[in-house]
Amino acid sequence: MTSPDITSVQAVLNSSKLDAIAFVPGANFRRIMGTDFHLMERPLVIIVPAAGEAVAIVPNLEMEGFVTTGFAGKIFDWRDEDGYSDAFRDAAQALPQLNGSNRFGLEAQRMRAFEHMALATVFPDTRFVDAHSDLSSIRLHKTDRDIALLKEAIRISETALEATLENVKPGQTELEIKGMLMSNLFANGAEGLAFDPIVAAAGNSAQPHAESRPGYKLQRGDALLIDFGGSFQGFHADITRTFFMGEVSDYNRRFYETVLAANEKGRSVSKAGVSAHAVDDAVQIVLEQSEFSGYRVHKTGHGLGLDVHEAPQIMRGNHQELEAGMVFTIEPGLYRSGEAGVRIEDDVLVTANGIECLTSFPRDLRIIG
Amino acid sequence: MTSPDITSVQAVLNSSKLDAIAFVPGANFRRIMGTDFHLMERPLVIIVPAAGEAVAIVPNLEMEGFVTTGFAGKIFDWRDEDGYSDAFRDAAQALPQLNGSNRFGLEAQRMRAFEHMALATVFPDTRFVDAHSDLSSIRLHKTDRDIALLKEAIRISETALEATLENVKPGQTELEIKGMLMSNLFANGAEGLAFDPIVAAAGNSAQPHAESRPGYKLQRGDALLIDFGGSFQGFHADITRTFFMGEVSDYNRRFYETVLAANEKGRSVSKAGVSAHAVDDAVQIVLEQSEFSGYRVHKTGHGLGLDVHEAPQIMRGNHQELEAGMVFTIEPGLYRSGEAGVRIEDDVLVTANGIECLTSFPRDLRIIG
Repeated sequence: MTSPDITSVQAVLNSSKLDAIAFVPGANFRRIMGTDFHLMERPLVIIVPAAGEAVAIVPNLEMEGFVTTGFAGKIFDWRDEDGYSDAFRDAAQALPQLNGSNRFGLEAQRMRAFEHMALATVFPDTRFVDAHSDLSSIRLHKTDRDIALLKEAIRISETALEATLENVKPGQTELEIKGMLMSNLFANGAEGLAFDPIVAAAGNSAQPHAESRPGYKLQRGDALLIDFGGSFQGFHADITRTFFMGEVSDYNRRFYETVLAANEKGRSVSKAGVSAHAVDDAVQIVLEQSEFSGYRVHKTGHGLGLDVHEAPQIMRGNHQELEAGMVFTIEPGLYRSGEAGVRIEDDVLVTANGIECLTSFPRDLRIIG
Repeated sequence: MTSPDITSVQAVLNSSKLDAIAFVPGANFRRIMGTDFHLMERPLVIIVPAAGEAVAIVPNLEMEGFVTTGFAGKIFDWRDEDGYSDAFRDAAQALPQLNGSNRFGLEAQRMRAFEHMALATVFPDTRFVDAHSDLSSIRLHKTDRDIALLKEAIRISETALEATLENVKPGQTELEIKGMLMSNLFANGAEGLAFDPIVAAAGNSAQPHAESRPGYKLQRGDALLIDFGGSFQGFHADITRTFFMGEVSDYNRRFYETVLAANEKGRSVSKAGVSAHAVDDAVQIVLEQSEFSGYRVHKTGHGLGLDVHEAPQIMRGNHQELEAGMVFTIEPGLYRSGEAGVRIEDDVLVTANGIECLTSFPRDLRIIG
């Protein structure tokens, strides 16, 4: 592909019968434009109509970078002191065919409500629809380059995790361990964090999205759940492993092995032609038929690439078929409130006959500290 | 204040004559609820009506954490396999007084378009307005605790910057230096990044929001602009310094000193009772009256706290008066396309008689490497 790849957007417009799509900096922007910009209080919006030239609304201070993308359409830039209203108005006047549209698509999981409102103001007779999934579909099948970058993000992340584990000791706090992990990520070549890492011990690990505590000191027998990823050239790793400090009770060992069995089931049933529903169903059945059935909280996984959470969602009810080139997480978990949570998460690439597991960090129960 | 601080939200509803405000995880959420949650593909929305009980729409997997906030209103949780439509519908049925509202406020710079659309679907006769500024006003005046946390974020950041500079050498890439900086941030206690750091040399530094290049090797005479911040307990530092590698030309020295004079002007004119407009105006005049007048691109600064960019915006046209307790950046810059950019950014706290400068990293022109 060449950048900017407006052709891919127009193919989506065609297949989804949309009159236009508006998108903002982020994963789709990076895929389409070949680079990314900050998404802050200054709107930067690109509108691609089904017919005619694309239009961009660009903060003046981003212009130097924006013109290097090679964007060929009309650009309406705006300065801080003037505000962005006029740029939106001028963009709408350059796209008269869109006023009155019944199918103006927005990248709605990424665009903020104020950008939506600014568009609604200058396209008053237009109906906006959520085209996030439609647009993101251009990133569903990973290229060889995408896979190579994902593998590098994962290699960096696994190296950082191992370096961190070697220094984890009882008496440390979750926040201290999180700090070591992040420092190790960047020391090993990460260019960003896929998300704010989750480092949670004991009862806190039973919250799937726990915030690390500064006060609690790790004790013998505690579960330590680490869910994190480094980013490399826009691509994100997303890995979870759960360890135990010093020792593990028989009960926690069964708890862990149950999640591991579910993770293994997910990796063994995934292949091209199987539905996302079927994968989650197989994984959930392992958990449901265990003695820990009541501790299930979430689906099996999500797509992974330039976004940390993207299509395909690996969950019951999503009957989308897996196809070669898709990448997603397999991350079953069980959560005993106030006691312990265990999650084991791998990143997998769908192939014709099964999967290639991109993550290779060992999954066997590991005692640390 | 106690958490959740719904009282502050109701005060905003009252003063802004809004019927309700809906908000999502982020800076305001942290201030109101006392903790924060991930903002990803699963909507978590709190609606506070002017009269009656607040309502929350919560992904089931966040429930364990959400109930610990002490939220006293109705909670409608939803599971991945069911989707969130029913939870929005039930929330709307619990708030019948809001359908037909003409003033339903949204935290529109943070909420995404798909959450806006989900609300519009279940409140079909309602007019939504952007209440981002109204809601954020509860964070405009920093408490002593806020200031202490900001100072800690800044202390960590300045320590990391100095540790990084000591290891910068010609021949390194922007991306290598950025990696060292981030690793040093987390090794020194940062809990997060305020934003993706900007580390840009030579011509790349002339892009205010440059992306670090993996290929370019730093050379003698290059400008090196570093704009970054670590986060601590949700509060963000935001610091920029510009250095020169090995030597500096007379022309670049004058270029640097011009920006420094503008930065000094900004710090000297800021005090309670002066408008944000007047501060930016004084700063811009220094730049406009210099030989480098044509290289101005952006305003003087922005508020800083739990958000990296918040009120007050320090720009011409914003006649809001500065008040004691506000915190903002003073970050004039000049950008010679393809050659060099210089920006010098401090974080300042408004006091009755002037400012307390929270950043203390030296500003005198420094030759490194």
